[in-house]
Amino acid sequence: MVGGGQLARMTHQAAIALGQRLRVLATATDEPAAQVTSDVVIGSHTDLDDLRRVATGATVLTFDHEHVPGELLDKLVAEGVNVAPPPAALRHAQDKLVMRRKLAALGAPVPRFAAIETAAGMPALDEFGAQTGGAMVVKAARGGYDGRGVSIVDDVAGARAAVADYLASGVPVLVEERVAMRRELSALVARSPFGQGAAWPVVETVQQDGICVAVIAPAPELSDESAAAAQQLALRLADELGVVGVLAVELFETVDGELLVNELAMRPHNSGHWTMDGAATSQFEQHLRAVLDYPLGATDPVVPVTVMANVLGAPEPPAMTIDERLHHLFARYPDARVHLYGKDERPGRKIGHINLLGDDAAGSAELRERAENAAHWLSHGEWRAGDDAERQR
Amino acid sequence: MVGGGQLARMTHQAAIALGQRLRVLATATDEPAAQVTSDVVIGSHTDLDDLRRVATGATVLTFDHEHVPGELLDKLVAEGVNVAPPPAALRHAQDKLVMRRKLAALGAPVPRFAAIETAAGMPALDEFGAQTGGAMVVKAARGGYDGRGVSIVDDVAGARAAVADYLASGVPVLVEERVAMRRELSALVARSPFGQGAAWPVVETVQQDGICVAVIAPAPELSDESAAAAQQLALRLADELGVVGVLAVELFETVDGELLVNELAMRPHNSGHWTMDGAATSQFEQHLRAVLDYPLGATDPVVPVTVMANVLGAPEPPAMTIDERLHHLFARYPDARVHLYGKDERPGRKIGHINLLGDDAAGSAELRERAENAAHWLSHGEWRAGDDAERQR
Repeated sequence: MVGGGQLARMTHQAAIALGQRLRVLATATDEPAAQVTSDVVIGSHTDLDDLRRVATGATVLTFDHEHVPGELLDKLVAEGVNVAPPPAALRHAQDKLVMRRKLAALGAPVPRFAAIETAAGMPALDEFGAQTGGAMVVKAARGGYDGRGVSIVDDVAGARAAVADYLASGVPVLVEERVAMRRELSALVARSPFGQGAAWPVVETVQQDGICVAVIAPAPELSDESAAAAQQLALRLADELGVVGVLAVELFETVDGELLVNELAMRPHNSGHWTMDGAATSQFEQHLRAVLDYPLGATDPVVPVTVMANVLGAPEPPAMTIDERLHHLFARYPDARVHLYGKDERPGRKIGHINLLGDDAAGSAELRERAENAAHWLSHGEWRAGDDAERQR
Repeated sequence: MVGGGQLARMTHQAAIALGQRLRVLATATDEPAAQVTSDVVIGSHTDLDDLRRVATGATVLTFDHEHVPGELLDKLVAEGVNVAPPPAALRHAQDKLVMRRKLAALGAPVPRFAAIETAAGMPALDEFGAQTGGAMVVKAARGGYDGRGVSIVDDVAGARAAVADYLASGVPVLVEERVAMRRELSALVARSPFGQGAAWPVVETVQQDGICVAVIAPAPELSDESAAAAQQLALRLADELGVVGVLAVELFETVDGELLVNELAMRPHNSGHWTMDGAATSQFEQHLRAVLDYPLGATDPVVPVTVMANVLGAPEPPAMTIDERLHHLFARYPDARVHLYGKDERPGRKIGHINLLGDDAAGSAELRERAENAAHWLSHGEWRAGDDAERQR
């Protein structure tokens, strides 16, 4: 697995159960996965020789991020390396313009958009701004994550500034309409080389400042028809793009109840962390099954509702150590499933997540509050005001 | 953790989630835990210096087996090592005579027994044989596991031969009556240094030839009163013995419905493997929480019934590789939770286990059959005759 982050770390847990040995390519020995795996190659994901070293003797080469240049992957494939997802699929998760154009070509519902690939394209921005009324989202086509590389603007002047910035760093730009949105959803599926597909229940992803803070599985009050349509769409996209492994299809649910595809990720995804405790097969095991061409596992939820809350580094370092905070957390939330990544704490950084399982789908709001309270405590070392009720339990 | 077997391997999975780093003392790099952990000390659990090496800098020293000599542990404690469970508790799981006498002294219900510590004790065997009518179980006080070191005899002559054998190898002997048994149960609990205790539901352990082949959680048709009594007894024993970590209390349920304590284990235990998928907190995480003195996690089952089936090496090597067998298994049982240990296959050897979760406690017999069918396939590469029904699913 290329990448030594938390996704590789959690994939290792699944690999252990399957009797597999996961080798990771990490940039340093203290990366989350490198801390806990026995077979670590230290190197860069942009260095062909490092990629060769991690691929040598492996059954399959896969990824915990999308940042390996496609031309290097093409070389590896030419040398006989089994790369999953294959580069031709992966490029749709590496470049937002490639992705968006392909989605549109496949007839997937997407927000209206314009491509600005060079300064010469600026006039198209003015035209697009006129169509959208000025409220737009400007995205660097490559290199962004967790809200970086995304600018939300209110008028054409703001858009021009953001576009110019991204272009100046050598990256083409995707500009899209700001959708009148009810919420964001995610349809997570897996596909094997043989072509088997499997879909988990569609989830709601709660975003703050462009970062996912919580996931509710399944998405509350989503009609069976909409959920099935989202699953079918995700399975179709996995098939049309030739995905091997997990595919996350991030969706906007508009105020009119329409579903639009926002982005794709071809790897285990934050919106699937709930499956570690809440589904018959976790996304990490499923990703391994898919890239190893095993039959896929059942995707049924084990309980009516699961909520995942990300533990995001606090703005100020808490007074208590993470160990002390964990101690108190366990005392107050004996049912919390805690997953820590072994990362230093920095403001806004994902350092872990907490899953809570519920018996009653109608109680998902309370479950979400408990999960977010628990995650807030773990990152901040302060109980939220809304946590009072918890003290009465 | 002293020992590099499957219990350490699965403890590592739990340590990853808790953000802990597990160091293991293994005898070879290909042991189940040594394959998948980053911090491995190669050495012997009977060598004081090796034990010191693994303990240096660790928060706590714990075990995946009971075979570390008590005198070495006493030395480590004297040197300031935090050993959990402490040697004074652990000795009750290391020596069956010490264990049985202590249980009797604590008023725990146990089978009638006699201790034969030297050849001079043989007359006591004759007397005990007269009381029991000749049907006895002869156990080496130390060193046995998975049916080894245990002889089932029908008369005093057979008992004398077995006792003489064990004495000749320098091990004292526990002789007990053969209990008229309905089945075997296990009460699994954990205890923290602070004294917090937590009990999982009491399970039925299905034994064949002295080896556990399956576990049904919770034990079918066990009265609430009996289950509560078994949990209370296990919690009391953990407390009286000063256990830190997981304690498994293996029980006989007699034909009269009485519960007798058979043996104790002070570590994660085969009868608790179901908790990895079927309980709010797995026994591996709970063991870590206990030895690290974190508050213990919830022990509630996540579904009405979970069945665990051990994958035991077949008498003859199967024609298919384990990888091919796993492939077919996943195709037929998409809901199977497979846990493999990375071990070479040998007849009767535990190489993995499979958990199946069920929505209906009344359907535990069918669930057990499916789990055992799946485990049989994985070890033998042959579908059992009773597996026909599965083809119709």
